[in-house]
Amino acid sequence: MKAVVRRGAELVDTEIAEPVPGEGQALVSTLVCGICGSDLHALHYLDHMIALTKRAGGMETVDPAQDVVFGHEFCAEVLDYGPGCTGAIKPGTAVVSVPAAFGPQGGELVGYSNRFPGGFAERMVLTEAMLLPVPNGLDAERAALTEPMAVGEHAVAQAPLTPRSVALVIGCGPVGLSVISALKARGMGPVIATDFSPERRRAAELLGADVVLDPREQSPHDRWEALDVPATMASLSTSQLLGRSIRDAVIFECVGVPGMIQQLIEKAPPTASIIVVGVCMESDSIEPSLAINKQLSLKFVFGYSPEEFAATLHEIAEGARDVAPLISGTVGRSGVKDAFKALSGGGDRIKVLVDPRRP
Amino acid sequence: MKAVVRRGAELVDTEIAEPVPGEGQALVSTLVCGICGSDLHALHYLDHMIALTKRAGGMETVDPAQDVVFGHEFCAEVLDYGPGCTGAIKPGTAVVSVPAAFGPQGGELVGYSNRFPGGFAERMVLTEAMLLPVPNGLDAERAALTEPMAVGEHAVAQAPLTPRSVALVIGCGPVGLSVISALKARGMGPVIATDFSPERRRAAELLGADVVLDPREQSPHDRWEALDVPATMASLSTSQLLGRSIRDAVIFECVGVPGMIQQLIEKAPPTASIIVVGVCMESDSIEPSLAINKQLSLKFVFGYSPEEFAATLHEIAEGARDVAPLISGTVGRSGVKDAFKALSGGGDRIKVLVDPRRP
Repeated sequence: MKAVVRRGAELVDTEIAEPVPGEGQALVSTLVCGICGSDLHALHYLDHMIALTKRAGGMETVDPAQDVVFGHEFCAEVLDYGPGCTGAIKPGTAVVSVPAAFGPQGGELVGYSNRFPGGFAERMVLTEAMLLPVPNGLDAERAALTEPMAVGEHAVAQAPLTPRSVALVIGCGPVGLSVISALKARGMGPVIATDFSPERRRAAELLGADVVLDPREQSPHDRWEALDVPATMASLSTSQLLGRSIRDAVIFECVGVPGMIQQLIEKAPPTASIIVVGVCMESDSIEPSLAINKQLSLKFVFGYSPEEFAATLHEIAEGARDVAPLISGTVGRSGVKDAFKALSGGGDRIKVLVDPRRP
Repeated sequence: MKAVVRRGAELVDTEIAEPVPGEGQALVSTLVCGICGSDLHALHYLDHMIALTKRAGGMETVDPAQDVVFGHEFCAEVLDYGPGCTGAIKPGTAVVSVPAAFGPQGGELVGYSNRFPGGFAERMVLTEAMLLPVPNGLDAERAALTEPMAVGEHAVAQAPLTPRSVALVIGCGPVGLSVISALKARGMGPVIATDFSPERRRAAELLGADVVLDPREQSPHDRWEALDVPATMASLSTSQLLGRSIRDAVIFECVGVPGMIQQLIEKAPPTASIIVVGVCMESDSIEPSLAINKQLSLKFVFGYSPEEFAATLHEIAEGARDVAPLISGTVGRSGVKDAFKALSGGGDRIKVLVDPRRP
């Protein structure tokens, strides 16, 4: 079958072996698959990603010296089943799935595996038990956004939000937009969003952000004072008794470059919660004494649960979360290389989808 | 009156003006007052502490060029009242107080103020409304431990503890011991504690830590595997589906030197909560991508609420929290300078008290 393969830090449009569904596995035809920021990183730094997973207690399941077919944000159509399947979802049905597949070697991430090609290939094998039929006639492009939108679902679920929370989303790439969409689907507000790119700010507006700022023109942190809420004695520490006020500030860091966390430690109001969703791959410097003085919390979040993934699919299908503003276009296999370059360059494109059936 | 004064980064045993209680203020005679780690820092770096407070949104209330009398961990005896007081607590009664006093210029921290001398002086003025009578015949030495023990009370209240939590306390100085004591008063266990000092490890044992380790001999992190709890699907992110397990690990960082936070990011099990109580005054380096991969949270805590302070006093007075193992001895005014030196040297002394009535 045709696939765009990562081979020695290059993307190659080539022919690879047809995947064969094993016990409990379905064979599916990829309809469309998003390019993720981690794919951009993994193209050049797959070694680093593997080392990180290993240090975090995960399994080392991919050999970067061998071919890998990226793509974990997919919508596909069921073709056939391997042995031991129920076949409950009929062939021809559009499905999505948490990108985890289970084979004789254990679980692996589809799209970061030598055994399980991802969605930049014409066909994949997936675990039948994890397939979710796409409901409500939702088109494949929007269904493929389930995975990145589940990241926001999880981040928002992990945040200590209350009815009086003020949410600030730093960065309106796919991660930040996913967070904004999940916040607005829960009726949260005000949601303040910032990004340098006019296209991304426009997408944030379309997704319902209440205040959208260009950080070159206005710091979102200037807004805290205006949104101030009187403090209660019971929730105050000694230092806060001395002239400080608090409010339920929840800040989502969705940029992931060095310096962002310290900038938030510097600018956040006392007792703010900072949810770190953007993945900064380099070492970073923070000032713990300032974070202590302000009683900040940093919650580092990653991925989502299968339940959050399923809930996201249904929210998209039922119109509670609109994903159209994220979709910058769809390319065939020959367009993947350029799309990686453009997305790495920090341009205005948000989510580029790949249709691996198209040359 | 006699007081040990900070004057140009030196401690001077000298005569200062008698304090006069103003509107709503009580005049008290200091019985005993603890030396805090922040006093050691403030002796040389008061400028830095002031800048930090200001950056954190607090008020600039102390001029480091003028005299400051340290001491915010005190037990005192009521002598007299200024105008507008109720006088409900009779003269001669032993009291403690959150070290915050309110004057015409607003609130200030007793012990870090040019206007309100702290407990290294023979007498102080305190806000009547904040005085708490020492109950149950508790002696002044143990009552003076209310303030540092309230720090642990607050840290533990801020931690996401559950009945299946495993608590690890890194560092058994006054802060770590206060955390251990608060954990055991709540019936938490197992509590694992580590420190290089045999005296501090002994104090941790006396306060009820279940496992006490010398980190040179055994890493506390080796214990996580043994304390493993099977994970449930619902609480797992994608990456955790792939061979990881989780448990409710809550780690209290009570050392406060550079490198500690990253060491915990490196060693903590996935989804652990790290409560940062030790104050690292320098810039520190962390690896956000590893923290994200493990979904760690870092909660920076500071101080306590007036309610936590009052609860701590009663827990000590009723024997729910024993503080005797923390007390290394009491010095007079002439011993303060040497005590500062010894405590800064990282020796085995834990909490040294000052009786400012003694020469």
